[in-house]
Amino acid sequence: MTTSEHYFDNVATNPLRAEALEAMMPYLKEEYGNPLSPYPKGSRAKEAIEEAREKTAALIGVKPQGIIFAASGAEANNFAIRGVALAKKDQGNHIIVSKVEHHSILNPARFLEKQGFVVSYLPVNEHGLVDPEMLKKSITDETVLVSLIHASPEVGTIEPIKELVAVAKERGVAFHTDAVASVGNIPVSVDELGVDLMSISAHQFGGPKGAAALYVKQGMRIVPLIYGGIQESGRRAGTENVPAIVGMGRAAELVKDEVSGQAERLSKMRDRLIEGITKVPNVHLTGHPTNRLPGHASFVVEYIEGEAMLLMLAAKGILVASGSACSSKALKASPVLLSMGVSSGVAQGSVVFSMGRETTEADVDYAITEFPQIITRLREISPFAQGWGGQEEGGQCIPKK
Amino acid sequence: MTTSEHYFDNVATNPLRAEALEAMMPYLKEEYGNPLSPYPKGSRAKEAIEEAREKTAALIGVKPQGIIFAASGAEANNFAIRGVALAKKDQGNHIIVSKVEHHSILNPARFLEKQGFVVSYLPVNEHGLVDPEMLKKSITDETVLVSLIHASPEVGTIEPIKELVAVAKERGVAFHTDAVASVGNIPVSVDELGVDLMSISAHQFGGPKGAAALYVKQGMRIVPLIYGGIQESGRRAGTENVPAIVGMGRAAELVKDEVSGQAERLSKMRDRLIEGITKVPNVHLTGHPTNRLPGHASFVVEYIEGEAMLLMLAAKGILVASGSACSSKALKASPVLLSMGVSSGVAQGSVVFSMGRETTEADVDYAITEFPQIITRLREISPFAQGWGGQEEGGQCIPKK
Repeated sequence: MTTSEHYFDNVATNPLRAEALEAMMPYLKEEYGNPLSPYPKGSRAKEAIEEAREKTAALIGVKPQGIIFAASGAEANNFAIRGVALAKKDQGNHIIVSKVEHHSILNPARFLEKQGFVVSYLPVNEHGLVDPEMLKKSITDETVLVSLIHASPEVGTIEPIKELVAVAKERGVAFHTDAVASVGNIPVSVDELGVDLMSISAHQFGGPKGAAALYVKQGMRIVPLIYGGIQESGRRAGTENVPAIVGMGRAAELVKDEVSGQAERLSKMRDRLIEGITKVPNVHLTGHPTNRLPGHASFVVEYIEGEAMLLMLAAKGILVASGSACSSKALKASPVLLSMGVSSGVAQGSVVFSMGRETTEADVDYAITEFPQIITRLREISPFAQGWGGQEEGGQCIPKK
Repeated sequence: MTTSEHYFDNVATNPLRAEALEAMMPYLKEEYGNPLSPYPKGSRAKEAIEEAREKTAALIGVKPQGIIFAASGAEANNFAIRGVALAKKDQGNHIIVSKVEHHSILNPARFLEKQGFVVSYLPVNEHGLVDPEMLKKSITDETVLVSLIHASPEVGTIEPIKELVAVAKERGVAFHTDAVASVGNIPVSVDELGVDLMSISAHQFGGPKGAAALYVKQGMRIVPLIYGGIQESGRRAGTENVPAIVGMGRAAELVKDEVSGQAERLSKMRDRLIEGITKVPNVHLTGHPTNRLPGHASFVVEYIEGEAMLLMLAAKGILVASGSACSSKALKASPVLLSMGVSSGVAQGSVVFSMGRETTEADVDYAITEFPQIITRLREISPFAQGWGGQEEGGQCIPKK
């Protein structure tokens, strides 16, 4: 039995764009030189990287010198918070993150705690929003860094980064944002947001896996995560992954022009999807109802077993996530949902539909048609549904919208 | 003017093998799933990684569970020494490396010094060899890790790792080796060497840039360098670079079968190259005369300006390195050569010919023919040659062989 695929998991990863792959091919073949090598084959690789740096910088509106390439968003996030915390450790030992950060912020934060740092984990409201007032109260004279996610891959909520940055800047505190889930999906300008550091990842916007970047504001000192040679101005060692970096640059160039139009198209599809999915009884949107990523529709489904739901959706060719891909096999209730006040029982039934440039109206039609039938069938066979008469009675489990 | 290329810089990087690229292509196209995603598209990516893990493990004779993928040899090296030092910091604060380590060992070692560790930098003899007796004397009750390079990319010398490991094991000290320059060029067995940790890099043996691995012995605790999701059993976060990992696996599979034959072929070519190049007056082999990487021939050339030599060789299509690619633009005399007793004036004239599977006898013929003419011409025009009458008088500048 073959079922055609309807890929609704663009937060996990995106297909590599054909144009990006085309740009990469020479560097996967004859142009294999090491960018540091002192002959034309090396110089050509170096030039290719610098061209990609310019294109990547342009996507977020910064100068090329601010871009440090990395191998993943996780590396960029680790680099950002560990690198700034260490560089500023003589000024203070306090950093601030939120409870809805990605694991690649939360786990290095826990590492920093073991190294003597104090970390505040800001709560969020029922929509996943961090409150600027709360941030203001959390900043102390010891605070050296605030790191808050731009948009949540799990619930789609876009944080008010500009307002949050303003609060941090009043106290002269450095600000990093994990923009892995936002860059490529909405127009993002470092200048407009006012952040000092930003993590982005190529495979989130049609570039290859293995390429990412940390933007660091000029003059901001950062301790390297990977020491060694003089690559990336001595800030990130290791032979550059030239093909991946070139692919990232090409994808950045393309998405820069397309992001606004795509955001508009995906927003409409998202709203239609939300409308269709939430018609199913006891299915609730998670995250902010409007201030959310364009292609992102996340829900909790009551009275079903979450993993069974994903499997049954997959059997019908509907490929979705249960939350962050990085924790999907951990089979724990999402800390992000819990921090938003969703009970652990309900949180286990989370499902995230995320759309991208290849998602079509037909995919949405298909999902809207199939999803209710799958949920009905699951509830018929699920032990979770026992004692449930079909009426909408689960509202108390999740916060009122 | 076009000059055909004679690539003699396989220590800097190697061409990606066509078979490896072919294996990668599906994962650069339709098989773009995230290995953690809970549906078949994700599972297939996961399976591809695990297959690559088996092949990579087989190349160095270990179980797949011991392989942690990384993005570069530099990352693997940083991970190894920082990860083990931190994991064992309650047992002691002393680590031992040598003066001929790669920057991606030496610079994290310096970082560890700032973190309160004490680092011993073992000297080497005129051939670049570490003395097991010296290691023995350096180990204290505080020593938690020894990290010594398997083979030097700069001078080709292969260290007596087995003997060095035996010394460390007597004292129960963990042992890491940076085998980036050796794996793929000579048969390497973790069991035979007895090491606990080993760094390897795919682009050194016909795999892609962006893929590398750290082998960690079962049961050895290591603190992650990149925290985040549950990838690599929680030991290295970040969405896996599936295509690169698959390419690494394929290259590992191929080179495993070919390495012995290739080593034999390259050794003969190397010896012929050494014979030809050292016929030029005041040109001296660096590194060990026999116990060296098969395709590796490194020299110091007296009475020339090093950078001019590389440029002139490149103009003739002879692509060589001055030493480690990671420092080639730093224009400093190589610390590796200095530690071997070469004077800084002579060390600036270093040149490394490194051959690989695409290197032909014709390339060697060409180099042997062109090199003497280039050196003669350079010495005619070089200020370094002033006062030099052509006789061999520079012997005192470098150690006697």
